[in-house]
Amino acid sequence: MFRFIKRALIGQPMHSAQLKHERISKKKALAVFSSDALSSVAYATEEIILVLILAGTSALFYSLPIAAGILTLLAILVLSYRQTIYAYPSGGGAYIVAKDNLGTPTGLIAGAALIIDYILTVAVSTAAGVAAITSAFPAMHNHKVLIALLFIIILTVLNLRGITESATILAVPTYIFIASMFFLLGTGIVKYILYGAPPVESVTNTGLPVQVTLFLLLRAFSAGCTALTGVEAISNGVPAFKPPESKNAAITLMLMGCIIVILFGGITVLANLYHIIPSHEETVVSQIASVVFGRNFFYFLVQVSTATILFLAANTSFAGFPLLTSILGHDGFLPRRMAARGDRLVYSNGIVVLATVASILIIIFRGEVHSLLPLYAVGVFLSFTLSQAGMVVRWLRQKHSGWFYHALINGIGMIVTGIVLVVIAVTKFSSGAWIVIILIPILVAVFMKINKHYREIAKELAFHGESMEKPTWQKIIIPVDSLTRVVAHTIDYAKTLSPDIVAVHVGVDEEKVEKLKIKWQEYEPDIPLVVLASPYREIVNPLLGFINDQEAQTGQSELITVLIPEFVTRKWWQYFLHNQTGLVLKTILLLRKDIVVASVPVHIGH
Amino acid sequence: MFRFIKRALIGQPMHSAQLKHERISKKKALAVFSSDALSSVAYATEEIILVLILAGTSALFYSLPIAAGILTLLAILVLSYRQTIYAYPSGGGAYIVAKDNLGTPTGLIAGAALIIDYILTVAVSTAAGVAAITSAFPAMHNHKVLIALLFIIILTVLNLRGITESATILAVPTYIFIASMFFLLGTGIVKYILYGAPPVESVTNTGLPVQVTLFLLLRAFSAGCTALTGVEAISNGVPAFKPPESKNAAITLMLMGCIIVILFGGITVLANLYHIIPSHEETVVSQIASVVFGRNFFYFLVQVSTATILFLAANTSFAGFPLLTSILGHDGFLPRRMAARGDRLVYSNGIVVLATVASILIIIFRGEVHSLLPLYAVGVFLSFTLSQAGMVVRWLRQKHSGWFYHALINGIGMIVTGIVLVVIAVTKFSSGAWIVIILIPILVAVFMKINKHYREIAKELAFHGESMEKPTWQKIIIPVDSLTRVVAHTIDYAKTLSPDIVAVHVGVDEEKVEKLKIKWQEYEPDIPLVVLASPYREIVNPLLGFINDQEAQTGQSELITVLIPEFVTRKWWQYFLHNQTGLVLKTILLLRKDIVVASVPVHIGH
Repeated sequence: MFRFIKRALIGQPMHSAQLKHERISKKKALAVFSSDALSSVAYATEEIILVLILAGTSALFYSLPIAAGILTLLAILVLSYRQTIYAYPSGGGAYIVAKDNLGTPTGLIAGAALIIDYILTVAVSTAAGVAAITSAFPAMHNHKVLIALLFIIILTVLNLRGITESATILAVPTYIFIASMFFLLGTGIVKYILYGAPPVESVTNTGLPVQVTLFLLLRAFSAGCTALTGVEAISNGVPAFKPPESKNAAITLMLMGCIIVILFGGITVLANLYHIIPSHEETVVSQIASVVFGRNFFYFLVQVSTATILFLAANTSFAGFPLLTSILGHDGFLPRRMAARGDRLVYSNGIVVLATVASILIIIFRGEVHSLLPLYAVGVFLSFTLSQAGMVVRWLRQKHSGWFYHALINGIGMIVTGIVLVVIAVTKFSSGAWIVIILIPILVAVFMKINKHYREIAKELAFHGESMEKPTWQKIIIPVDSLTRVVAHTIDYAKTLSPDIVAVHVGVDEEKVEKLKIKWQEYEPDIPLVVLASPYREIVNPLLGFINDQEAQTGQSELITVLIPEFVTRKWWQYFLHNQTGLVLKTILLLRKDIVVASVPVHIGH
Repeated sequence: MFRFIKRALIGQPMHSAQLKHERISKKKALAVFSSDALSSVAYATEEIILVLILAGTSALFYSLPIAAGILTLLAILVLSYRQTIYAYPSGGGAYIVAKDNLGTPTGLIAGAALIIDYILTVAVSTAAGVAAITSAFPAMHNHKVLIALLFIIILTVLNLRGITESATILAVPTYIFIASMFFLLGTGIVKYILYGAPPVESVTNTGLPVQVTLFLLLRAFSAGCTALTGVEAISNGVPAFKPPESKNAAITLMLMGCIIVILFGGITVLANLYHIIPSHEETVVSQIASVVFGRNFFYFLVQVSTATILFLAANTSFAGFPLLTSILGHDGFLPRRMAARGDRLVYSNGIVVLATVASILIIIFRGEVHSLLPLYAVGVFLSFTLSQAGMVVRWLRQKHSGWFYHALINGIGMIVTGIVLVVIAVTKFSSGAWIVIILIPILVAVFMKINKHYREIAKELAFHGESMEKPTWQKIIIPVDSLTRVVAHTIDYAKTLSPDIVAVHVGVDEEKVEKLKIKWQEYEPDIPLVVLASPYREIVNPLLGFINDQEAQTGQSELITVLIPEFVTRKWWQYFLHNQTGLVLKTILLLRKDIVVASVPVHIGH
């Protein structure tokens, strides 16, 4: 049943030989790798003005210089990552670059930051995609969490199947999004020039507006920095480009940077021109599209393509997270099974973990983009900073020609992203960043602990033909309740293993003991039967005591084997109708002793 | 840790020899066996007037003839059960009487009714006890469910300890209750004669009062019949009386009947004299005591002793239910372990099941007595009817002297309780009785199904020295992942069992396979290593396929044993870091095949 549902959803398992690496053109690569970065323009402007509105509508003007600052930061990042692309043609994620150049502990910090980053990308992008939908269809507003979870489930199933045609599938909606946003910006600006802005609705501010302080501006800046999430994606995926890989990747990165500048800058300008006030029910982009187009076809095109690209952005994490956790699993910092490919050659465990944690976040934060975002940027900028720092060290060590120029660019990137990281951590600390700041060292500690365990185990398990005490003799203990067919079968089985067999019965009911003794004498007279007294009606403890005694009497080269007669019932519920003494005994012996415990099963009622 | 808490709560385990049977005097027996019956006067009057109030305050007068009818029914029941006491000096519960005389299926119906009855006694009595407390201390009204659950937990712990001094403990509050109720009735009637009733507060009836119909009166009668619950208790406990057991039990039963007549009749009369209107916040008894005494010491004495006797009533089920389920377990109609005595010689499993189900009922019905009661009476009257029917058949079969007179009494009892059963089932059907009417046949079906399973298993397990195919030869299969110390140990162990050993590796990673082959050749050249291809990266299925093949090649007298090298980690969380292939393989083999699977454990890192 379970198998059938699994097959229907996930598809038939795929042969290991089917694993292949698709190479994609720049055009497709832009779509595949930039959906995360592009999609963040859907909420970045809104986040800036949500902070500024605290100081009243007049303060919204500051969104323009703040956006300009963020775009400068973008330019620095693009130039920095361009260098990473050339230096790591095999893919230069923050974990690899930091681990390579700054050592494993720093690499793990970057890895922890990335893990959090990927999870939040899914949560934030899905929530924002749902917000785009509920802005267009307000009736669905109360079902945000449910819709978001539904989309995560769809993404999970698609990714467990393995999206081999991903590039083609992703390309279409990404370009529709870019086109519809360009059309929105163009129309919006032309309309403004021709007709000016519509009259401003008077807004009743709740409470007195606060002063425009430097802290408020920094908070708005931090909030807007979410526009930069996903910029690093191309540098991770260099090997997927057609040759010359690095060059094509670098061109794609520059192109993506330009598109973000236009979209994010344009939306911020339009939000100012049309005096958009952020609202809980409708996104800023929806409000702009509403004013520019009215609720016609183009409005819905903008909303639907925004939602689509946001889901695609969530989807990119479904590629990145399982890959990262498989690398961490392979390196022994996460459970090894994270590195195992599932039925469809994808890292299924990573996909399921990602979907589960992101869903929990959606539920906890009730699907609110604004509540999730403070957690987002810290991880992103921490991985930016560590990645750039790694690159700086790399240039200083290798001293290729032009190393100083390269180091300078990455150095500026490192310093700027480092400063922004501190600004974000401070300004967003109380609204959620503290969670991430606590979580990263915890994750690193978990990585280290797991790794230490794997190393210790490997040392203890190592075998190079060391001569060990060879056992030569078996002593077999069979716990019996009554002399049934199953017990008789177990005794026959035991006789093939060793002549040294003892049956042991825990006596609770005297009448039963007498009956057993008589029957035993009749049918199994050659096997000794030991009856243990149990005045407190316990079964397992007297048996353990007996096994301990036997062990104490046993020589070095003798081994004890406990055979448990077990009958397997036809239906699961029948299992609960029989004494589970065997199960308890097996578990305790396995946990406590180096004694072999075997179930001798007989199937009953089949 | 768990053991420590258990010992602190439950006490040290008791020796089987400590099991003893206490004999009690009539005075104590009245207290022990009648708390259930006496306590129901705390809510029976209220239930009657809660129905009558639907037809307006003037209809409350009908509570007097209805109470008279119920007391007539009580007289019939007392006379009937008096006969059961003499006929079954070893205890005549409805299950035993019905099974004895009407056959097993009817006995099981009575058993199902009794099980429901016992569970509801706990739920209803606890809820009513809490209502007595919250009437006196209205601040606690919102925590009804919590207080009720707390009392159930206390009762559970006390009963798991085993209440050996129960008779003495129970006697005191029961007599305090009887005394304080007599004092309330006496004072109430004297005060009424001297001063008359206080002025009636005008009550705003919500909605139009309905007509006084026969159906309404029957509903009120059904509701009041809850006063009769627990009347049968003495007939179950005859062996606990001092000799002459039956005579003493019969006298106690008559005495109890008289007390109920006075208390239930008296409260109903007082409720009429003082024009008591039922309320959601305060019980009828509390209102009467309030009017008669004012909120002084005597008021609180009535409330506290009412609450106490209600908890004692719940406690009687903690004796009756585990005894009944242990009998059903012993007879093979419930899991056998229900018949096993726990550490303190009580039937612990029954106690825990009772407490759990009653707690769930309390939670579902939010601790409301009035919501629980419609479920209560059906089970009680079904067991009354079946018990009387069994007695009638008994008299007709045995034809002792005076059989006609005896059969007549029990026959009247059967007919009257049968009619009342139908009335209750019909009038309370929609308000909850339907649940019980559905549940009883389900429970009976479960009993039968369990019994059928036990009988089948017993037949299949039976062993009388039948000659079976004796195995003579072991083929040992060892699944290996890599050649570790644990695997080497398993091979050494296997060599003591049989010379026919094969190791099998599932190849997922070609490089790993090659390394294993080389190492194997070096250290274990005398054991053949089979490498299975697994293009779909599955581990368990190829192993199962290999075991199937081996099984097909195996002769009749050959046996296959699978040895699983297993390393046991020091800490539980470390367990999750290793492949659970062994566990999955063990489970599947145990469920599917009669193949012996043994764990060969090595403890690592200890």
